[in-house]
Amino acid sequence: MGLENDCPYIIGRGRRGKLNLITDVPGVKVGHVTVSNGYINTGVTAVLPHGGNLFKEKVPAGCAIINGFGKTVGLMQVNEIGTIETPIILTNTLSVGIASSGLIRYMLERNPEIGVSTGTVNPIVAECNDGPLSDLRGLHIKEEYVYEAIENAGTVFEEGCVGGGTGMRTMGIKAGIGSSSRIVELEGKEYTLGCLVQSNFGAFGDLVIGGDPVGQRIADAKNDAKKDRGSIIIILATDIPMSDRQLRRVSMRAAAGIGRMGGYYSNGSGDIAIAFSTANRIPHEPAGCFINSTQILDDYIDPVFKMAAEAVEEAITSALWHAETMKGRDGNVVRSLRDYLGDIEPEKLGLDKKENEKTVPQKKE
Amino acid sequence: MGLENDCPYIIGRGRRGKLNLITDVPGVKVGHVTVSNGYINTGVTAVLPHGGNLFKEKVPAGCAIINGFGKTVGLMQVNEIGTIETPIILTNTLSVGIASSGLIRYMLERNPEIGVSTGTVNPIVAECNDGPLSDLRGLHIKEEYVYEAIENAGTVFEEGCVGGGTGMRTMGIKAGIGSSSRIVELEGKEYTLGCLVQSNFGAFGDLVIGGDPVGQRIADAKNDAKKDRGSIIIILATDIPMSDRQLRRVSMRAAAGIGRMGGYYSNGSGDIAIAFSTANRIPHEPAGCFINSTQILDDYIDPVFKMAAEAVEEAITSALWHAETMKGRDGNVVRSLRDYLGDIEPEKLGLDKKENEKTVPQKKE
Amino acid sequence: MGLENDCPYIIGRGRRGKLNLITDVPGVKVGHVTVSNGYINTGVTAVLPHGGNLFKEKVPAGCAIINGFGKTVGLMQVNEIGTIETPIILTNTLSVGIASSGLIRYMLERNPEIGVSTGTVNPIVAECNDGPLSDLRGLHIKEEYVYEAIENAGTVFEEGCVGGGTGMRTMGIKAGIGSSSRIVELEGKEYTLGCLVQSNFGAFGDLVIGGDPVGQRIADAKNDAKKDRGSIIIILATDIPMSDRQLRRVSMRAAAGIGRMGGYYSNGSGDIAIAFSTANRIPHEPAGCFINSTQILDDYIDPVFKMAAEAVEEAITSALWHAETMKGRDGNVVRSLRDYLGDIEPEKLGLDKKENEKTVPQKKE
Amino acid sequence: MGLENDCPYIIGRGRRGKLNLITDVPGVKVGHVTVSNGYINTGVTAVLPHGGNLFKEKVPAGCAIINGFGKTVGLMQVNEIGTIETPIILTNTLSVGIASSGLIRYMLERNPEIGVSTGTVNPIVAECNDGPLSDLRGLHIKEEYVYEAIENAGTVFEEGCVGGGTGMRTMGIKAGIGSSSRIVELEGKEYTLGCLVQSNFGAFGDLVIGGDPVGQRIADAKNDAKKDRGSIIIILATDIPMSDRQLRRVSMRAAAGIGRMGGYYSNGSGDIAIAFSTANRIPHEPAGCFINSTQILDDYIDPVFKMAAEAVEEAITSALWHAETMKGRDGNVVRSLRDYLGDIEPEKLGLDKKENEKTVPQKKE
Repeated sequence: MGLENDCPYIIGRGRRGKLNLITDVPGVKVGHVTVSNGYINTGVTAVLPHGGNLFKEKVPAGCAIINGFGKTVGLMQVNEIGTIETPIILTNTLSVGIASSGLIRYMLERNPEIGVSTGTVNPIVAECNDGPLSDLRGLHIKEEYVYEAIENAGTVFEEGCVGGGTGMRTMGIKAGIGSSSRIVELEGKEYTLGCLVQSNFGAFGDLVIGGDPVGQRIADAKNDAKKDRGSIIIILATDIPMSDRQLRRVSMRAAAGIGRMGGYYSNGSGDIAIAFSTANRIPHEPAGCFINSTQILDDYIDPVFKMAAEAVEEAITSALWHAETMKGRDGNVVRSLRDYLGDIEPEKLGLDKKENEKTVPQKKE
Repeated sequence: MGLENDCPYIIGRGRRGKLNLITDVPGVKVGHVTVSNGYINTGVTAVLPHGGNLFKEKVPAGCAIINGFGKTVGLMQVNEIGTIETPIILTNTLSVGIASSGLIRYMLERNPEIGVSTGTVNPIVAECNDGPLSDLRGLHIKEEYVYEAIENAGTVFEEGCVGGGTGMRTMGIKAGIGSSSRIVELEGKEYTLGCLVQSNFGAFGDLVIGGDPVGQRIADAKNDAKKDRGSIIIILATDIPMSDRQLRRVSMRAAAGIGRMGGYYSNGSGDIAIAFSTANRIPHEPAGCFINSTQILDDYIDPVFKMAAEAVEEAITSALWHAETMKGRDGNVVRSLRDYLGDIEPEKLGLDKKENEKTVPQKKE
Repeated sequence: MGLENDCPYIIGRGRRGKLNLITDVPGVKVGHVTVSNGYINTGVTAVLPHGGNLFKEKVPAGCAIINGFGKTVGLMQVNEIGTIETPIILTNTLSVGIASSGLIRYMLERNPEIGVSTGTVNPIVAECNDGPLSDLRGLHIKEEYVYEAIENAGTVFEEGCVGGGTGMRTMGIKAGIGSSSRIVELEGKEYTLGCLVQSNFGAFGDLVIGGDPVGQRIADAKNDAKKDRGSIIIILATDIPMSDRQLRRVSMRAAAGIGRMGGYYSNGSGDIAIAFSTANRIPHEPAGCFINSTQILDDYIDPVFKMAAEAVEEAITSALWHAETMKGRDGNVVRSLRDYLGDIEPEKLGLDKKENEKTVPQKKE
Repeated sequence: MGLENDCPYIIGRGRRGKLNLITDVPGVKVGHVTVSNGYINTGVTAVLPHGGNLFKEKVPAGCAIINGFGKTVGLMQVNEIGTIETPIILTNTLSVGIASSGLIRYMLERNPEIGVSTGTVNPIVAECNDGPLSDLRGLHIKEEYVYEAIENAGTVFEEGCVGGGTGMRTMGIKAGIGSSSRIVELEGKEYTLGCLVQSNFGAFGDLVIGGDPVGQRIADAKNDAKKDRGSIIIILATDIPMSDRQLRRVSMRAAAGIGRMGGYYSNGSGDIAIAFSTANRIPHEPAGCFINSTQILDDYIDPVFKMAAEAVEEAITSALWHAETMKGRDGNVVRSLRDYLGDIEPEKLGLDKKENEKTVPQKKE
């Protein structure tokens, strides 16, 4: 039925989850609101760690600020307290304020005690700059879009030019939202690590897919190059029991995934990774002073790290694969990978890697 | 004329600036918008590092996250890039989103190239929770207030229950905005270090002023105690030439000032310090690849550190001194220090410290 | 019998443990080796989180680098992995290398698998500069001293000019090792938080004890002042179940204790705090991939934070109280607090604080 | 004459320096001491930022702790003060203490004021675990080796199984010291960025060279695999004027280089990068309170970042290329890349990348 991620590029040898989406992690949901016309190309994507009331049942989380030229809000508290208590909202750079306000309002409506009998709430909103293709200055995101994105959230969702990723580019090629997942087996039980990216980083010509310098060949053949500014937001989710420190470590592995795509965390890039685990929940109103929980031991964490790097690389690739050529504000055009593919012989674009094909998981239902 | 800070408490032996306000640092301006009635008690305070276009002429800055249970936006980028490019806005916790959006809009209007021919802008907005005295859930801050606070900015400004500090408490006693300054002499030249706090931290009974456990005596005499949640935002400004790393170090000294007031960076407190220097400016559109600048050497930085700790302690004290008893939402009352002073013998409140009096600078014009 | 800490200064109102030493935390032991003659005044102090094999049974730990002008080794890994796997060794700055080597050798002897069938070991060695009173350049610490200090470790230990603290000064006054403890009650059960400092920081004249600017009066009366360089190492131990992140938070509260003593983390000071919990142990060779553990919830952590700040303040005070005037290399003399006390009227030194006396715990056996 | 780096793999399209070694940065020198026999295979490598007295003329520096399972000493102070004041020493994990002590002694001899009329010195010593091939527990490094490595330092030096890299492996294949350099042009002037690695990380099968999964093919063909533990130390040097913050940013780009080699910063890996600039020197005894210096603007830093990632990737590749099969303690054998190359058809090992050959710079004299 095509609901799963159908990106044909295979990154690494890890085993993919059923849909090859972040929502393979049980309970995780993703929803989009897309605003796209000739002039405005932006939106909101919401990632929900679980379907319950996150303020009442927080999840452990950690983050890595790989390059901090970014405007993500909420991570200071994640680093201090080690929890996430709202959905994670992705949007454009200049709409972080409005989206924060919308997310706060959403949380207030569902938690009447906030600001009265209990403290406040820490909204998590991350961003990339979709300026070249969208009327960024118009501040077109509205508070309601945050509600809608959360309400649209489900286990199946679109990738490419949708939601917060609508106007995004990566290495000068059209990109957007991408996702992937990997299975990690521990003590005979299968766990899932999922990834979702809002990918908007890198310079034209630098794109590498699966080790192949695709971008170099495109740049040699074409002449679309211009200096890019951009960022990438990476969300990693897992049902493996992990502490906030361990999740911080997992999020740092996104740096390897970006590097493998040809990125080097450029000056103006907010390269931010956030990881959370759904295995343990921290109650807002606990029964006592103490909590008991299970965690993986660091000695056993390497398969998770390896899959995190791989899943990030694949999610970025998937964002590129799913995106379509877009004409945005002021006639700016950013061509898609598949568009470039049509121009150039496929084998030059790295899609003839026969030897890996046997590792493609079966994705039919 | 009473325009200067008339707080009678003397902290340390450092020499105060002319007004004993952060605006003793040449070019720095502060403005407030106050929204205060029986039910809503909140507002916005703007701190301007200089009077020009901050986006075009950024200032070096650093920050210390002493306790990160806070929702300040913009510091990730300060840490990475070492500059501030907007006024610093202080407001209540749940209005950070709206205030960010207002600040972005303000910057966009003054810089038409943002989002078109150049990148985006990094708004700095910090917050404390004024919930107990104000209808925090009502989200009463509007984008326009940010404009107004910036436009109101001048070198003379009120302290106490004004602007972002309107509904604040400290150690269970009414507080708000406080300020102070210190003179540092280097190579025979006088420089200024100024401080402004939005003070809202600590538990009833813990207040110490100038080493004297005032709060303990109040708590023993009274019975107003309740568990407090809160935060403190500390802005440090100087005209000493300093690098971002050095400013990060200066901002960390705020921790000593908080500690001396009886604070210990409680769990739910966003204890955030931001320091900037007006001595060097970083152009948004530089003439070349390189910039030349002067900096203090770390070997000579101790007087700055010492004065930073002292200025923070005095600014918090000043916030307490200038605040007035307030009755807020749902009949909640928070009494002022001077109110408690009227009840209790002054000598028990530490205001009879005769021996220090001679060090009070003359403040008449 | 006088085995307990008999420092007469009372800091705060927290309840002290039985001995008012870090060893009130069950299992924690401290041992010294002191090398002291007219020219050499240095040594080694060992803090043992528990009496077993720490490499095999690690303890969770966190640290705060309040000012990083220091040469402590081992904290990079504490921050990443969240555990301590050796005793903590305190010594002088230039002997960190030799002490590390001694500690490594000690651990190798007890763990024949290190470097063969398992990885390496992460020694924790912290330092302050005892140069002004000792022949620092002579590198007089030997590897064997580390063994001896560990073997000397017990629950009762001396304070003042002993072990790693032998040649230390604080605010220009003779100091050294100091300790203290506090009781924290959680869910009706008593837990202990203990502190040990190797105190060597601050400038003459800045000393504050219990809010009283003692140093100012000494400096006004005397003329011993000189520029001080120094550091402080703070060890916090507890039997409260805590995660590495929570222990990092606890260690940060040392900044309040230093601030209250008149310190401001001066440029050349390595102000380093390390906190560990004995409640959970992490096996080096676990039975499976996962571990189950109990932790305090952050919402209940404030009493621990408050007692941490207080215990640090009291441990520094205790180091000053227990130290004796010392004549060191090249005729350098550093006078003790009690020495200054004899010169100046006691009430000027803050020892006549009658009103607090009733809160002194009974320390008789 | 073969003095330059003759590694045939070409990473990226950046222009290499004359020798393709870190010593292409004017003033930088590297020296080794190698201890290698059937049972002991270890050593010391020294990297000298300049040939003068580093204590008297410090260089700005920054570092990135990509994964902190490591025992590097000295970085706490680099992070706080932003300078390096000794040569950088690389050796094995358990010899960090002895090497620190040797480096301290070396510095004391050349700076008689240390510990007498001035403060102490901050030694920088980094490490990887050469245990599988060497008698790590024997602690065979002596203090004198540090002196010798420094005295051996020159602009031409060996790569592969030498110095601190003698017993190192990378991805299960013999490795050691590797180096590379890149030219960056700014305002019409050529600057150099150089890299040196002590490479010892990753798991067998994961090796990627220039995007090609060489390790996978080796692992499929062979059966030498075992779980690896390891680390990588990365030194980046440049003559571009940069601040400590900018150098911290440059060092972080090493994460991209590691990621491109197939690494993911595994749990037990100390992945540590240190970057310094030789363009500005900070005097230990300055003439006044202030210093004037030139720095690159962050807006122009991307070519440096890009070349840093590329240089790291190439230096690791060079370490693999130059290493030779080694039989170490207990008959443990680690085969070299060229050894595997002889077994397997070259085209399977990625050395037939014809299309890139034209980008090989001419290296003849």
